[in-house]
Amino acid sequence: MTKEEIKDEIIQAVETVRRRNPMVGSITNTVTINFVANAQLAVGGSAAMVYLPDEGEFLAKAGGATYINVGTLLPIYEETLPLVAKVLHETGKPWVLDPVAIGVGSLRTQLLQRFKEYKPSVIRGNASEIIALAGLWELDGGTAVSKVRGVDSTDSVHAAKAAAVSLAKWTGGAVAVSGETDLVTDGSLMAFSYGGSGLMPKITGTGCSLGGVVAVYATVASPFIAALTATAVYNLAGKRAEKQVNGTGSFQMRFLDELYQATAEEIANNPFEIEEV
Amino acid sequence: MTKEEIKDEIIQAVETVRRRNPMVGSITNTVTINFVANAQLAVGGSAAMVYLPDEGEFLAKAGGATYINVGTLLPIYEETLPLVAKVLHETGKPWVLDPVAIGVGSLRTQLLQRFKEYKPSVIRGNASEIIALAGLWELDGGTAVSKVRGVDSTDSVHAAKAAAVSLAKWTGGAVAVSGETDLVTDGSLMAFSYGGSGLMPKITGTGCSLGGVVAVYATVASPFIAALTATAVYNLAGKRAEKQVNGTGSFQMRFLDELYQATAEEIANNPFEIEEV
Amino acid sequence: MTKEEIKDEIIQAVETVRRRNPMVGSITNTVTINFVANAQLAVGGSAAMVYLPDEGEFLAKAGGATYINVGTLLPIYEETLPLVAKVLHETGKPWVLDPVAIGVGSLRTQLLQRFKEYKPSVIRGNASEIIALAGLWELDGGTAVSKVRGVDSTDSVHAAKAAAVSLAKWTGGAVAVSGETDLVTDGSLMAFSYGGSGLMPKITGTGCSLGGVVAVYATVASPFIAALTATAVYNLAGKRAEKQVNGTGSFQMRFLDELYQATAEEIANNPFEIEEV
Repeated sequence: MTKEEIKDEIIQAVETVRRRNPMVGSITNTVTINFVANAQLAVGGSAAMVYLPDEGEFLAKAGGATYINVGTLLPIYEETLPLVAKVLHETGKPWVLDPVAIGVGSLRTQLLQRFKEYKPSVIRGNASEIIALAGLWELDGGTAVSKVRGVDSTDSVHAAKAAAVSLAKWTGGAVAVSGETDLVTDGSLMAFSYGGSGLMPKITGTGCSLGGVVAVYATVASPFIAALTATAVYNLAGKRAEKQVNGTGSFQMRFLDELYQATAEEIANNPFEIEEV
Repeated sequence: MTKEEIKDEIIQAVETVRRRNPMVGSITNTVTINFVANAQLAVGGSAAMVYLPDEGEFLAKAGGATYINVGTLLPIYEETLPLVAKVLHETGKPWVLDPVAIGVGSLRTQLLQRFKEYKPSVIRGNASEIIALAGLWELDGGTAVSKVRGVDSTDSVHAAKAAAVSLAKWTGGAVAVSGETDLVTDGSLMAFSYGGSGLMPKITGTGCSLGGVVAVYATVASPFIAALTATAVYNLAGKRAEKQVNGTGSFQMRFLDELYQATAEEIANNPFEIEEV
Repeated sequence: MTKEEIKDEIIQAVETVRRRNPMVGSITNTVTINFVANAQLAVGGSAAMVYLPDEGEFLAKAGGATYINVGTLLPIYEETLPLVAKVLHETGKPWVLDPVAIGVGSLRTQLLQRFKEYKPSVIRGNASEIIALAGLWELDGGTAVSKVRGVDSTDSVHAAKAAAVSLAKWTGGAVAVSGETDLVTDGSLMAFSYGGSGLMPKITGTGCSLGGVVAVYATVASPFIAALTATAVYNLAGKRAEKQVNGTGSFQMRFLDELYQATAEEIANNPFEIEEV
């Protein structure tokens, strides 16, 4: 794909979502669940969140895509998450995995291990999470020990390149690594998306809600385009919001406004570069 | 009741709440729980949320009214919700039911079925939810199959008229159907409330928090007046907030400001019409 | 300590946190969990929230301090909270307890009773909560019956003096009582911190997030200084935010902005008085 072809597909994805208002089910953490839903709505999606196994299965089948974020695990997730991931895999429905805080606790490790076979369409995380997941799945570029610090990365996006490529090759989908410059790859093409704001890591949920928005675009676009489109609108909204605010409270509010206002053309024209892997 | 009598009761409800700061317990979903609490506080109530059975029972008895929203069910709800609803029914305390996402999952169906005997004072939902609940309870105007899409309605408020009336007749309370024009009925009188904003469905929680605010007014007014007062302040706040914002983030913020600022007179004067059923 | 020495330590605490970005684990209620995280981030900390026992243990050991808020208890808390508090006590890590809604439900009572032996470094609550906790722990100044109304206080800060002192003496840490004028004591020194806003109790989570921010400062300062620093920045941010807003929605946003912007000097210079107990 050329850069122009990619831009056309981004425009297509943004406009189709706004027209169709696709429903996306999410199983996500309680810290940022409201922000995830509001971000999904701001870009034109419809959001539904659940915890119970049969409800997750229902949404997996009824929705256009599903977002799974392992942030604040509850005991019931032991049943819910493998079931939902299995259903998604078997029905060929796109789903996005956010391996938040990988390395913290045994259930998280066990669940993330199971997901290897259910091949998420898009994996979205910070550099340390992506490296740790590749390590857990015994793929190239991963390391055995997670360097995640709580929910924060201690690695640079550049350091996660090999892990991102090997994860994308394994799943046949795409991987998005969030950081100062964001990386999106489908295993053969690698895109670098620019913009954003230093305030983004200063509010909780920019990463989680990005994953939720990737799922919205995944209802109408390929994993690679969905991940790149969501990353682009986040970089655009972050850059714009930053200029108009006095702190993190107003940044969060303005960021949602910018997600809501961004046009398809503007999102497609947010700076990015591509290279062959 | 005449329109003037209704307006007087609305003014009474708003002012009494602001003076008494009534405590309302809620068992509600994790997506919008913060917004529900802040909306309840903005209109003058005091908010307390719980999950466990004996805590729900405690609040049911201690609070002036209770709000039950079946949004993101947890396993413990199987014990908590029937117990709390039973206590509310037996003690004659007002309670508001929000049958979010009716049709999704077996526990939700089972719980909503149980609530028929505990007769919620107010049922608040979108058109599809109200029609589906009437169907589940085998009342006139309902349909056997839920047309709820995730948390969204696919029916018009007008289509839910018969279901709303039969639900209100069954409970002896009131039913509020949210949509472009909102409908509130006690089974004999039907009110249509105007205003609001196209941005309201673009943020998560306007429906849930409306239910929470109905519960606040239900501590001091009849189910019908409580539902109409809450609907009126929502329509007023939505209409006003829309004019001052650039997107969904600022709308959410401004909407709470408008809930907080609205005077009793302004709420009573928000346009509505009444007709006999 | 003189007032000047205290100011120096406040400046030290604020600046060290901003430089080190300390990680704080929290187990807290779902109502205000987002606000807690954003407040912790706004003052320079890193926030991670969990529910499961081994995850709580992991964060207790990995983080610089831990925040435990018993707001919306889940069944798993029966295992998680005593384990985490025990680990914190045994490893000598600072932790902050927020005894929200003490008196509501049996699990809450049982957990709060257990915490007596694990001696939280800082206890943060409203006057009624502090009095009720001293009562539950059979310390001077406490009463047998909680006068907490849902999550609200029915007592004045002044009335909680004796309870605060005896709790601080028992734990060897500090106690912060939130109200119109806030009280912070380590059992021998008592500080009164001024400022804040009448809008603070009109939004949910100012108390919870204050507890979360105390934990952030407790990673680098003594319990007394941590509690006083957090209380000072809250009073400063509240006072400043109030002047620029039209209601509770914009207050919440502006309050986070002010937390983010406040300088170490400004926080240290927020009015307070000290006296010997």
